[in-house]
Amino acid sequence: MSQRRTSADAGPATIRDVAERAGVSVASVSRVLSGNYPVSDDLRRRVMKVVRELDYVTNAHARSLAGGGTPTVAILINHITGAAFAHVAKGVEGAASLRGWLTLVGTTGDDPERELALVNLMRRQGVTAVVLLGGAYDFEEYQLRMARFARSLDSAGSHLVLVGRPALKGDAPATTVDYDNEGGAYAMASHLLSAGHRHVLVLPGPAELTTAQGRLNGAHRAFEAYGVPFRQDMVHHGPYDFEHGLRAVEHSLEQGPPFTAILAGTDVVAAGAMQALRSAGLRVPEDISVVGYDDIPLASQLTPKLTTVHVPYEEMGRVALRAVADRREGGAGRRGGDGDQFVLGTHVVVRQSVRPPERQG
Amino acid sequence: MSQRRTSADAGPATIRDVAERAGVSVASVSRVLSGNYPVSDDLRRRVMKVVRELDYVTNAHARSLAGGGTPTVAILINHITGAAFAHVAKGVEGAASLRGWLTLVGTTGDDPERELALVNLMRRQGVTAVVLLGGAYDFEEYQLRMARFARSLDSAGSHLVLVGRPALKGDAPATTVDYDNEGGAYAMASHLLSAGHRHVLVLPGPAELTTAQGRLNGAHRAFEAYGVPFRQDMVHHGPYDFEHGLRAVEHSLEQGPPFTAILAGTDVVAAGAMQALRSAGLRVPEDISVVGYDDIPLASQLTPKLTTVHVPYEEMGRVALRAVADRREGGAGRRGGDGDQFVLGTHVVVRQSVRPPERQG
Repeated sequence: MSQRRTSADAGPATIRDVAERAGVSVASVSRVLSGNYPVSDDLRRRVMKVVRELDYVTNAHARSLAGGGTPTVAILINHITGAAFAHVAKGVEGAASLRGWLTLVGTTGDDPERELALVNLMRRQGVTAVVLLGGAYDFEEYQLRMARFARSLDSAGSHLVLVGRPALKGDAPATTVDYDNEGGAYAMASHLLSAGHRHVLVLPGPAELTTAQGRLNGAHRAFEAYGVPFRQDMVHHGPYDFEHGLRAVEHSLEQGPPFTAILAGTDVVAAGAMQALRSAGLRVPEDISVVGYDDIPLASQLTPKLTTVHVPYEEMGRVALRAVADRREGGAGRRGGDGDQFVLGTHVVVRQSVRPPERQG
Repeated sequence: MSQRRTSADAGPATIRDVAERAGVSVASVSRVLSGNYPVSDDLRRRVMKVVRELDYVTNAHARSLAGGGTPTVAILINHITGAAFAHVAKGVEGAASLRGWLTLVGTTGDDPERELALVNLMRRQGVTAVVLLGGAYDFEEYQLRMARFARSLDSAGSHLVLVGRPALKGDAPATTVDYDNEGGAYAMASHLLSAGHRHVLVLPGPAELTTAQGRLNGAHRAFEAYGVPFRQDMVHHGPYDFEHGLRAVEHSLEQGPPFTAILAGTDVVAAGAMQALRSAGLRVPEDISVVGYDDIPLASQLTPKLTTVHVPYEEMGRVALRAVADRREGGAGRRGGDGDQFVLGTHVVVRQSVRPPERQG
């Protein structure tokens, strides 16, 4: 603090003071502070050191509030402990951090009230974009709510980005980043069918959630393509959690028709399913094959390692951030038009949890 | 939107309009909007419905910005994918949400530069408190940086809360919520020693991190109490991740002295250790016992279920939020004094990963 300028100095530090003391050009300081361009770590460190010494931060930030300095991106997520969406957030943050941008995460707890309050808070705070993550309940009300958010943010000079959520109908100014959810489920179910499985327990997720619907549709299409009857009594909806996987499999082992494989809606559901099998003295994959969806780190930490669908969550976050940065650099001319839509590919990651079924007795 | 008041109405909606249409008292509307008191879900829903119908949200929020309406708590976390601290954040959010408060999470990526930028951003935005989570590197620089944050936030009418971090020396106005880290490690190591283990591989975490130091100290004290020599060549520092657990055990199996148990610094490190043992054809706990630390959901999802130290992460988050709310209700008289310090207990959760060692051959 000894190097801090006092009020007896010749007024608040200017950008010229910072440049001079850091031994760099005014343009370089401006680059670092604006956060609009990637800069070298070394330059950023030198400039930020002087910024702190001269207590220039507050000034810069005061200006940035008025003029739109350090861009900040807000990420809204349902639950902070959900691994898949934490990885999207990580992707957004990584790409933001490269540009010197800040990110904030708000959690909605699946409550539209809190979602609204957070979107309003963010709009007031002049964030560059609001990124909404996660499967949604695609009722008409969802479309209306999102369209309202999109227009409200757009009119405030901000922008709505939906990641892993249904695109908006009509001309709402929002960007959508999604993944080929149904295609991944089709490929995963095909993998089981190719291995010879014909009796498959399906745990797609919550019936009303768009991601679960897509996963179920993909599986259904694969069964049709293979000419294998798709039995509704072997489909068990329920939350995307460990407990549901555990209970659904316990229940099916006791009361359901026999099965040789489990198609789980997420890796976490698959982990629960595997624990239920193990408790019943069944081996994976020798007795029953199990597959997941998401490819979160847990998938390769389970024993056996889980065959699953890779969803590029981090990459989706990076794409979302880049889309926002591109719009910003494209300037006002790009504002207000229809949003861009990105769809990223998914693919099966073959590990150790699938084996052809024993011949049915 | 058909019920929305137009500009032709008698001016913007007042709190009286909201109360009248919702059929409740002005005081009730005020309670809901201020977020200072718990209110029933039913009341909140009724009021918020009218608030939306009359487009009163923006007015209320505009006032709240000036007068400190809906309190918002900012949580700063190193990495969003860390399970333990996601649970602290969940605790903060749950307790905040009960009061109608909002929470925001920012991630620092272990970068003091980003930490500073986020603290400044939050201070400017008038948040009620900034909660910093996670093990810290307790150099002198840390103490200085935190003391500066504490004073800067305090002077702006906000407050610093450190969770799972070293308390500040001196009279910096910060609240600390910590857990009995060393006590937990002492109990965990004692559990292994009581079972008869004398050759224990110790994977405490990163050497410079305060939490890892505490866990190592606790283990050391337990060995002393049992009169068992504590061998430095059986301690392997490294990151709190799966990969480190895996590599350290692979390495020790090939080159290190023999061991009958592993004391892992976290549950995730224990999961990596278990995978290395399994790959080497060793069974847990028949051949080698393994224990973790944290008691995140993973611990009870592993096979065998992991014996570990329960850290009340969610409860720490709730305690942090309550401390902030108490200060706020206590009013200005409580401001600027020394911070409160809370230390929560830890305990061993016995599951299935420990067994007495086979007699040494």
